[in-house]
Parts: sequence; structure tokens; C-alpha cells
Amino acid sequence: MEGKANGPSENQAGRSVSGPTNPMVTPLLNDLYQFTMAYAYWKAGKHDERAVFDLYFRKNPFGGEYTIFAGLEECIRFIANFKLTEEEITFVRDSLPGSCEDGFFDYLRGINCSDVEVHAITEGSVVFPKVPLLRVEGPVAVVQLLETPFVNLINYASLVTTNAARHRFVAGKSKMLLEFGLRRAQGPDGGIGASKYCYIGGFDATSNVAAGKLFGIPLRGTHSHAFVSSFMSPDEIIEKSLKSSDGSHTSEDFVSLVQTWLSKIQWSKSLHGIFGETNQSELAAFISYALAFPNNFLALVDTYDVMRSGVPNFCAVALALNDLGYKAVGIRLDSGDLAYLSCEARKFFRTIEKEFGVPGFEKMSITASNDLNEETLDALNKQGHEVDAFGIGTYLVTCYAQAALGCVFKLVEINKQPRIKLSEDVSKVSIPCKKRSYRLYGKEGYPLVDIMTGENEPPPKVGERILCRHPFNESKRAYVVPQKVEELLKCYWPGSSGGDYPMVFGDVQCLNKRREDLPTLKDTRERCIKQLEQMRPDHMRRLNPTPYKVSVSAKLYDFIHFLWLNEAPVGELQ
Amino acid sequence: MEGKANGPSENQAGRSVSGPTNPMVTPLLNDLYQFTMAYAYWKAGKHDERAVFDLYFRKNPFGGEYTIFAGLEECIRFIANFKLTEEEITFVRDSLPGSCEDGFFDYLRGINCSDVEVHAITEGSVVFPKVPLLRVEGPVAVVQLLETPFVNLINYASLVTTNAARHRFVAGKSKMLLEFGLRRAQGPDGGIGASKYCYIGGFDATSNVAAGKLFGIPLRGTHSHAFVSSFMSPDEIIEKSLKSSDGSHTSEDFVSLVQTWLSKIQWSKSLHGIFGETNQSELAAFISYALAFPNNFLALVDTYDVMRSGVPNFCAVALALNDLGYKAVGIRLDSGDLAYLSCEARKFFRTIEKEFGVPGFEKMSITASNDLNEETLDALNKQGHEVDAFGIGTYLVTCYAQAALGCVFKLVEINKQPRIKLSEDVSKVSIPCKKRSYRLYGKEGYPLVDIMTGENEPPPKVGERILCRHPFNESKRAYVVPQKVEELLKCYWPGSSGGDYPMVFGDVQCLNKRREDLPTLKDTRERCIKQLEQMRPDHMRRLNPTPYKVSVSAKLYDFIHFLWLNEAPVGELQ
Repeated sequence: MEGKANGPSENQAGRSVSGPTNPMVTPLLNDLYQFTMAYAYWKAGKHDERAVFDLYFRKNPFGGEYTIFAGLEECIRFIANFKLTEEEITFVRDSLPGSCEDGFFDYLRGINCSDVEVHAITEGSVVFPKVPLLRVEGPVAVVQLLETPFVNLINYASLVTTNAARHRFVAGKSKMLLEFGLRRAQGPDGGIGASKYCYIGGFDATSNVAAGKLFGIPLRGTHSHAFVSSFMSPDEIIEKSLKSSDGSHTSEDFVSLVQTWLSKIQWSKSLHGIFGETNQSELAAFISYALAFPNNFLALVDTYDVMRSGVPNFCAVALALNDLGYKAVGIRLDSGDLAYLSCEARKFFRTIEKEFGVPGFEKMSITASNDLNEETLDALNKQGHEVDAFGIGTYLVTCYAQAALGCVFKLVEINKQPRIKLSEDVSKVSIPCKKRSYRLYGKEGYPLVDIMTGENEPPPKVGERILCRHPFNESKRAYVVPQKVEELLKCYWPGSSGGDYPMVFGDVQCLNKRREDLPTLKDTRERCIKQLEQMRPDHMRRLNPTPYKVSVSAKLYDFIHFLWLNEAPVGELQ
Repeated sequence: MEGKANGPSENQAGRSVSGPTNPMVTPLLNDLYQFTMAYAYWKAGKHDERAVFDLYFRKNPFGGEYTIFAGLEECIRFIANFKLTEEEITFVRDSLPGSCEDGFFDYLRGINCSDVEVHAITEGSVVFPKVPLLRVEGPVAVVQLLETPFVNLINYASLVTTNAARHRFVAGKSKMLLEFGLRRAQGPDGGIGASKYCYIGGFDATSNVAAGKLFGIPLRGTHSHAFVSSFMSPDEIIEKSLKSSDGSHTSEDFVSLVQTWLSKIQWSKSLHGIFGETNQSELAAFISYALAFPNNFLALVDTYDVMRSGVPNFCAVALALNDLGYKAVGIRLDSGDLAYLSCEARKFFRTIEKEFGVPGFEKMSITASNDLNEETLDALNKQGHEVDAFGIGTYLVTCYAQAALGCVFKLVEINKQPRIKLSEDVSKVSIPCKKRSYRLYGKEGYPLVDIMTGENEPPPKVGERILCRHPFNESKRAYVVPQKVEELLKCYWPGSSGGDYPMVFGDVQCLNKRREDLPTLKDTRERCIKQLEQMRPDHMRRLNPTPYKVSVSAKLYDFIHFLWLNEAPVGELQ
């Protein structure tokens, strides 16, 4: 049940970039103040001053020490098609004070992102606080209009990808992880976004059909409790025949075949006394579902009573299918003590395998759902369970443990002048200057530290000692001799600043700078999984993880503190 | 700065209903299992069996004892336009096992919601656990396909509306509440939905321009820290002239006028010594903003230091504007101790009013933002503050305190047969039968209890004693003599079951049943505010609120327990 990708996976430099997945992502998906500021910049003749903004977050989510960066592709799709329509301009005009001059709306009519440069960390990378995820450079009024959409597109994307990665970490590699969150997501595209980003974060499939269609994510799903309770009894099944898997023969009365098996199980040596009469509406539902999907029979077994009704009913249908050459898939548990019930169900399957000589019956797949999260997965692991696949919804997609990531977008330079934003709270002081950033790797192949430098500083070199300083704490510093140096920011949108080629919307060519291709969703997912594997384990553990170090060069450190003193008002003691 | 409504406010019975706000809301915005079940129903010849589903939630959010119902309009817009396209059908076919028969896809091609009836509580109403928000009736396979989209559209909408109402409750009626959450919302339409539903819940305005355009919600916004730090000093201001408000004269050098005022303030009797040199980049930004918006000057004053720079700079500009007949609007605080700073700023304004004889200067508006939520609003109230308007983002729109509402959609009847869903957990047992529900009001005008009855029971009558029973706890029951009886479920989508009129998509007429008009957004907001005012105060308080009673009739109680015994398997003691 896997869909086909029709996402923008084939983007390459010089190829057209399709618009954002959600057509509601337009230049009006913005805070009003971006437009009032644009007007004030324009009125002051300042709108074309070249500004550099950093997009970053201040703290890793979920009490962890890492974050996965996601949402970049949607940002690039947004700016590749950035253009205000006449209708939008009219609305902006109506929303601003009547005193605003006409010239501004002519200006708005003309703007696009051909003069904007976006450098970014590759989507799906492991990232850390304070290090810019994006560095956006361009005319200040235009870049200001990108703030709200960019932050919106990255905040939740990165948060939910990180949440998915954390769930994968607890569940372990061998388990199948299914995202079942659409109905509980924060709105329709909260659901669609969750499906995409949970897949990047390491989930295997989703229940969300729209996400399957948009992104080619594998789909999973069988039936609900309503399906079970919609049946009254096997008597209502009219079409009872089922052809064998190889087409060689037909069971004319599959219902009777199942009932015979149910009775065999009930009166078998090892299982006698475990259950009495099973629920007949459930039995009817299972039979009907098997008749519809003889090759894909997976039954939800907890509508009435897992061990006294659901599992025996399932086994009877699975054994009848087995007679006709079909292999049932397994069961889903959606309530109760999942550890206990999965072990009991496994025991039941093992007994059936032995008692009736059906090879492989013990290995029947067990899926568990019902309000799962990191903690319950961890508790299940500690208790011991027999679950093969987890269906996770609410806690995953709404990021219930922490519903927001605080990404910000701060001005760090304008007209080549570095700028700083001060705050009573040191953690909120921004790191000024147009910067580069590097990840330095140690001998064992693990990333050791991220370092930010001024744009024109020479990059750290492999084998050369470099001083890494905490940006705000003078006593925290360390020398590092990197074994590998990785530059983090790559050019994903070069604008047209160097060339004078004809600008075509949605088809921007890069003449002067190489533009990084947007990777396919699968590549992004693989990058994420690899990057996580590459981290030193103590950064990744759930309990008291070691913080990963983020630093600035000695030169940048000095400059930050010079600028800070320069901008902060001097108090008057009285 | 108020936009115009172009939402679906003019819907009336017989008028066309536009599609969902988000074009991504299509029949594929669904869990795959709704399609696998549809196939299994179809294969069993059961797809047209008439089923009744209830949509409800089990627990009020945020530790409270009430919820606001929202999202109905989007559901109606969805079903009014429900139709699978050929492309969607092809995708569903590719996603289902290859063994599925062609006839099913012909069936999918033909389905719509003309045979579905939706009864619902009016959007914006105060609602309680277990009482159906929607009762959806129709062919089981079609109604099954509505489950995921309906639950998705209602869960977050109701949650965030309730969150907004709770914020309004703490802030009090007199404060202006501004929703500033777009950048932190869970994706683009998380932001757009938040703006719409916070407005219903009692907010006054939003920063979200797209929401202003879509729904006509008033817009607010001035400038950010980046605007302030994008300026270096007043020297860079080129166009310095400002015409007076009445056009009678012009200040040729507004910058000097401001600087003169700043110096007057600094050396005034009452303010001398409070601040030294203010930040010049901030001063330049404020002057530029005032030149752009002389009638709407509201300044963010915390980029460098609120009392030593921001407030004095603001006052200098405001006094210069005052010379030219303009009235400044006020300041915004976005960090630090908001209670203390707002009081200090107010004191400063008062001193300016007295010292320079500017009437009304003391009343300058103070807006506060920065990670506000119910708790911080409550703390500010207890501490005492001078804030007039609150800008609330992250905690409001992501529903940080509880990121999901657990709405469910349960089968309660099929083919006129009542159905029940059992569970080990009593709170998860569904209430069977096609039901009606009523709100019973007491002598003082407060709602006393909601009661569910079987569809054909006589409705409760004003002045007649009626027994209200807890659905699952036999000892909890009470007699009530209602002074007013309100039927809760109204017909918002009558389908076409009684008439044989020609079906036109997006233009369904109601021949046999009156269809409730969808109210305008403003009416829904007013309903919400009125309903909240009408509740007995002890249900509404933040600390230990009294639970509102939800009950069933004596007849329904007996039937639930008869069915329960009937469906639950009998154990075998050994």
C-alpha cells in the first residue's frame, strides 16, 4: 500500500520550484507588522538596504540535547514563488492607515526574492541552539516579509521531526513505527505536516492518505471499532465463498469454516477453558474483513475483550484463511495493558502453532496503539512486551510534551554594520555579524562542537588547534584539533545578485553561485537517520543527556562583547 | 486596520456553500482505514446500511470544566463539496491491495453527502463531555469517510477556542487581547485556524494578515526589534519634515524637534537623573516610524533598556508629535518584569503629563507581550499592573498547556439497531442509540444539567420533574424541574433523504427539513461570549471548578446497561 511521490523531489538548480504544499502559504501569511515596517523602511528610503538575518532556536525541545532541522524545502518553495497579487496588495492597502503613500504599493507590486540569498543547514540535519539554521540576506524590507512564513514553516516542522526521532530512539530500530495522528493534529495541515516530518524523523508509514499522495509516504490502515460493532452476527454475511490463494479451489462457506476452527480452538487440549462464547458481531466483522482482504487480514481485537473474544476470533479466521493458502498479517491492540496483552496474545499464537501445526503462526504481527508516547514506549520496553509495530498519534503529532519550538529571526547585520539585540535575559541576546558555522569532528568520528565565525575569518582546518569559546560565558572555552571540518550553511537560494539574467518566477537560474539541490524526501529521511547514528551516545540518551557544545571563534567573541558594551545604556547610580 | 469579511458569512439554506478554507481539506484527508473499511462494507453489501455516529469528547481541556465547540462551519463546507476526483480515486486504488474489485471504485465515483444528515450543537456554544457535538447519520461507508476530517476539523478548533476563552476569562473584559501566534503555530493553517478560533473565543484582533483577509478579523501590528536595530542614528534620517495633523503647518526638522524634547525631559525637574544618553539607533527608529505613521505611533520600547532608553525615547517622539497635533498610541513591552515596567512606564507618562501639561498623556496605551499564558496573566493581575492590551502567541495558539482535545466518533446505531463500544476503562464506553440532547435551565437562569434521551422519548417539559441519571454510575442521579429546556442538536445538513430534488454540488437545497443557517463569524463570537457569561460562576473558576452535570434519561440508562451486559463476554471462573 505504498503511494507514489509527486512532491518536488526532482528540483535541481535551474529547474522550476513548485509552490508550497499548502496553497494558503502566501505573502499574506504574515504578521501585519512586517507590512507596517516595510512601509516605514520604504518611507525612510531604507527598504533596499542589505540586511542579514539569522533564523535559530534557543533551546532544544523535550528536555533533550538535540533537534532535527526541517521545513527548509517549504521555505525555498515559498520564496521561489514569492509575489503579491493585486488582490493581496489591495488588502494590505486597506489594512494600513489611509495616510500611506501610493508609491509603496507600487513598490510591493514589484518585489520578489530574486535579490535574496538563503544559506541553510541541510534539511534533516541534527542541529543545536544558537547556530543559524538559515542565514537570509537581502533588501531589508523584503527579508522582513519572509520572517513570519519562514519561522512558521520551520518551527513545527523541526519540532515534530525531533519528536519522531525521539520516539524512534526509544522504540529501537527493529520496530515498525506508524504515524496515526491526523485526527488529533492541530488542523488539516498540522496533520499533513506531521506525516511528512515524522517520516523524515524515522517513522515507517502513516495512516494519512493525503500525505501518502503528496509525498509518497507508505500508507497503513485496516479497520476501527466502528467496523466491528457495525456487524450483528455471522448470519448477516450473504456472500460466503472464498477462492483459495492459488485459485485452485473455493470454500463455498467460509463462515462455517471459521466457526469450525473457532470450535476446534475452544475445545483444544491447551486452550480449553480460556474463553467461552466469543462476541458474534466481532466474529462477523473479522470474517467480512478477511473476505474483503484475504491477503491483508489484520484485525483490531479489543472492541469487546482481547483474550476472551478478539484473539480467539482472529485465530479462527486466520486458520480458515490458512486452509485456503492465505497468511494473516496480525492483530492490533488499542486499549488495556499493552505489555501484558501482547505477551498473552503471543502465547496464544504459539499454542495455536503447536497445537494445529501451522508454521509461523507464532510470528503473527502485533500492533499496539492508544495514546502512546516516549514514556509509555519506555515503560513497555522495561516491562517486556511482544509488540512489533506501534501506531502513535496524539502525543506525537501535537508534540504534547512541548507544543512549540521557539525559533526566532534576528537582524545581525545591515549595510555591512553588525547589529545586536540585547535583553535582560542573556540567553536572548543575539549573536551579531554575518557568520559562517562549522561542525568540528573528533578522532572517534563524533561531532565535537559547532563553531560560528565572522564571515571573513579563515575556516578551521583539519589538524590545526582552534579556540572555541562560549558566546556569553567568558570562562567556558576549549581548544579543539578537528579531524574533520564540515561547513554547515550551504546556499539553497542564491538570488540573482551577481548576474543580470532574466528573472522568471518559479524558474530561477543560478548563474553566479551554485545552488544546492533540494534532496528528495527519502534522502532527507536517510540523512536524518544517519546523522542521529553518528552522534555520541551521551548526547542522545533520554535521562540527563550531555549538552553538545556550541561556540564562537575568539575573534567573534571579542566583537560580540565590544558591540554589547557599545549598545547598552550606561546606568546612573544615585 | 480592519479587513473585510469574505468568508462564507452569507450562507443560508438553499444557498451554495463554499469549500473548506484550506483547499487541502479533501476526501483524501483521511486515514487509510476509512477506505479499507469502505471497501469491506461494499464487499459485504453493507455500504448503504444507515448508520448513526456521535462525535464527542470525553474530558474538558486545561483542567477546566467547560469547552467551547468550534469547527462546525468547516465540516459543513467539507460535506457540501464532498466528491472524489478521478485522480483521488486512482490514488486510492493504488493504495489498496490489487485484489480490490473495480466495482468499488465506481461506487466511490458516485458518492457524495446528499444522503447524510448532520445535527450539531451551534458553533460557539459551551459544551460538555459525552454530549454529542455532532450526530451524523447516513450510509455507513460514506459516514465512515467523514470521521477523520470531521474530528480533525473540530478537535483543534474547539481546543484553541476554549483556550482563548480561558485567557479572556483571566484577563477580564476591559483588556484588549491580541493573538500574535502565527509564527509559533503548528504549521500555516494552525496559524490561520488559531486566528479564527481565538477571535470566536473572545480575542479582539490578530497579527495574522491572511486571517484578516479570509475572515475579516481586525488586524494589529507595529514593528519589531529588528526595525529598531536596523537604524544606526538619527543622522541617517534624510526626509525630516512632517506636516501637522490639520495640514496648517510643517515641521521642517522633526528630528531636531524630538531631540529638543528629549533634552527637555532629561533635564526636567521631576525626571532628571532617571536616564542618561538614550540609545540613538532606537531613537532613529522611533522617529522614522512616527514619520511613516504619525497617527498610529506605537513603539516597542525594550530593545535596549525600557526605562533608561525606550520610554524616554518614546515620550520625546510622542511630545514632538503632540506639537503637530498628533496623538501617539502607546508602547509595547516584550521582555522583563511586565508588571513592574508597566507601572514604571505609567508613572513616567503621568509625570510627563504634569510636567509638560499634555492632557491625556498618562493614558498612553501599554501593550505587553512575551510568552504570556493563563498563569502569567493571573500572576500579573495579582501583582498589579498597568497593561491595557496583551499580545499572546505561543501558549495560546499551540495550546501548550494541553495540545490536543480527544474528540472521538463512535457508531451508536446501524440499521435501527443500537450499538455500544465497550472498554476496560468505563470512561471509554460509548453511549448507544440515536439520541437527542437537551440543556435544562434552573430558576436563576443558569444551565443546570445536559440530558441525553432516546430519539423517540418525549422531550423534557418546562415545570415537569425529570430524573437525570449519570450514564455509568448508578448512584448518581437527581430530579430536576427545568425552567427552560433547550434542544441542543440542530439540523445543519439535512441531506436529501425525504425529497427527490436534483442534487447540485455546493448548492444543496433542503426540501424536507429546515436547515439551520451557518452564522457569521461575529455572531458565533457573540454567541460564545454570551454563553460563557450565562454559566454559573463556580463552573468557570480556574481553581477547582465545579463539574457541570451530564446525564441520561432513566429509559436510556436502563437500555445502556441492558446492551452492555448483552455484548460483554461472560468470563469462566476456573
